[in-house]
Amino acid sequence: MRKKIRAIQYGVGPIGAAIVRLLREKQAVEIIGAIDTDPAKAGRDLGEVVGAAHAPWGIKVSADAAKVLSEAADVVMHSTSSYLSDVAEQLLECLAAESCVVSTCEELAYPFRKHPGIAAKLDATAKDWGVALVGTGVNPGFVMDKLVLTLAAVSQRVEAAKAIRIVDASKRRLPLQKKIGAGMTLEEFKEKVAAGVVKHHGLPESVAMVSDGLGLGVEEITETIEPVVAREPVKTEFLEVAAGQAAGLHQIARGLAGGQEKVYMELQMYVGAKESSDTIELSGQPNIRMTIPGGTHGDIATAAVVVNSIPAILDAPAGLRTSRDLPMCFFPPTAKP
Amino acid sequence: MRKKIRAIQYGVGPIGAAIVRLLREKQAVEIIGAIDTDPAKAGRDLGEVVGAAHAPWGIKVSADAAKVLSEAADVVMHSTSSYLSDVAEQLLECLAAESCVVSTCEELAYPFRKHPGIAAKLDATAKDWGVALVGTGVNPGFVMDKLVLTLAAVSQRVEAAKAIRIVDASKRRLPLQKKIGAGMTLEEFKEKVAAGVVKHHGLPESVAMVSDGLGLGVEEITETIEPVVAREPVKTEFLEVAAGQAAGLHQIARGLAGGQEKVYMELQMYVGAKESSDTIELSGQPNIRMTIPGGTHGDIATAAVVVNSIPAILDAPAGLRTSRDLPMCFFPPTAKP
Repeated sequence: MRKKIRAIQYGVGPIGAAIVRLLREKQAVEIIGAIDTDPAKAGRDLGEVVGAAHAPWGIKVSADAAKVLSEAADVVMHSTSSYLSDVAEQLLECLAAESCVVSTCEELAYPFRKHPGIAAKLDATAKDWGVALVGTGVNPGFVMDKLVLTLAAVSQRVEAAKAIRIVDASKRRLPLQKKIGAGMTLEEFKEKVAAGVVKHHGLPESVAMVSDGLGLGVEEITETIEPVVAREPVKTEFLEVAAGQAAGLHQIARGLAGGQEKVYMELQMYVGAKESSDTIELSGQPNIRMTIPGGTHGDIATAAVVVNSIPAILDAPAGLRTSRDLPMCFFPPTAKP
Repeated sequence: MRKKIRAIQYGVGPIGAAIVRLLREKQAVEIIGAIDTDPAKAGRDLGEVVGAAHAPWGIKVSADAAKVLSEAADVVMHSTSSYLSDVAEQLLECLAAESCVVSTCEELAYPFRKHPGIAAKLDATAKDWGVALVGTGVNPGFVMDKLVLTLAAVSQRVEAAKAIRIVDASKRRLPLQKKIGAGMTLEEFKEKVAAGVVKHHGLPESVAMVSDGLGLGVEEITETIEPVVAREPVKTEFLEVAAGQAAGLHQIARGLAGGQEKVYMELQMYVGAKESSDTIELSGQPNIRMTIPGGTHGDIATAAVVVNSIPAILDAPAGLRTSRDLPMCFFPPTAKP
């Protein structure tokens, strides 16, 4: 029998915990360590930290990244920040430990426009060490980019692409409800947008990936963030939104080529949305439309996409990969190591 | 500048012609030859045979496969038959010419259950010559298998998969309307099904690919073909269907594991269908449903999927590949060679 895939979890926040719980279900995977600098987590049992039913697991969360990474895992599941410049050193450290990396860092999903220097360095370092890394998740990484490109496999010609994602955030975790500005006054919302706090990360990355994959030649990417204003009070498990306050965000990214809109990505993420859904439209030959009624649940799907990417990243040529390159699929729990 | 991708078309029937017309739009591709044994085509100009607007192209269709293949194309687009045993020698000849192959042969889409011997031989031969081959198209190859597996990238657990494809065949070409039994009496339909003439090829291949990709452990695949009975007369450009006659077929393939239905694929393909659509449902965590209202047009999409597979097959490791392994995407017309 082949040895199991040895995995390390880097970052045990809400998404990291969801990844770990799912990883634990895969027979082909052995979790050999976890890294988190939060004093409330470091030193504790990983199973207990992630709220697993059958804890403890006998795996300690450690704040000492270098020590954990020295175990030379096959793959590091990385989930610490949305900003590539914040995590570049962490990623380089993983690569130097000769581990492949699957990261939820949104800016890593398609980093070539915003961070060409870091992208080149990560790619070169990964090749030096003979490993591959990818930034992925549900969005960016799947519904607004990979799925668009996959659907275009049936297209003879594509002139423009559109993706609209509507998410009812009512049942989502508190940090997410805060990140989308739910319960803020409109003035506060505006301030937080200006401060970069209220924002979904990754739309420009999706626009760039779609433009490159479809050959749409987008030269300029714009992005706007407006509040969705609550018409009536909304109450979630975590917070209350009064009528007239922000219920969440309405974010639009556009990709323009020669002044024409080639890619349009719209995200409505707010508490009290009547129905969640994902919709993709390709204009061309043929025109084609796809919908996922009810949408793809962000947290469940993010953990799923990340864990399902493991076989593909282990199999990928060394270097910086994106979900565009990888055959995104499913990692069966009963798959053999 | 790199040289263009040199392509040969093997089989210039309706699908082959659609492939050729699309190939011609790709700046990165040069068509260097075409093979067809039909005396009505052999010796004529390829552009004229496929009904291109700007013919002649100065490329002759030839009945001499060996001679054309000796040009050692980078890729052969193969479209001659649905039956793998009928085309195995053709495929081996392409591989021995050191050409990659993209074929529309439905049984090649996932040949491991029905033709394990041929599959092994093709795989070994492809590896010997350092090239890759794949059988693909819209169905099998995309809507009922690859798209199902791609959607499962957002799944944490999958218990069962279902794909339902409804195709209004009214606007489709005559051979297809005949293949689905449109205009036959119910008795004739039954005879033609028994003779293997009225049939859509590829559902069991899709069931097998989905079972393997999702780890569903399907042991047995069943298939039934029933007529869709016309309730009122239907007239198409090519034929007339009287009330009470067959308007087309209703074909169902099931994948069973331990007596339980794990994969369900349903194809309704008939003239007069009110609305075409493709629907995929995954049961598990989460349940997820995707629809393509209007469906993916068979002929347009088949040519598209096949031509769009070229960059992936040229980039793939040597051997027999399936659409399960390849990152299905779009091949931009303006892509550089």
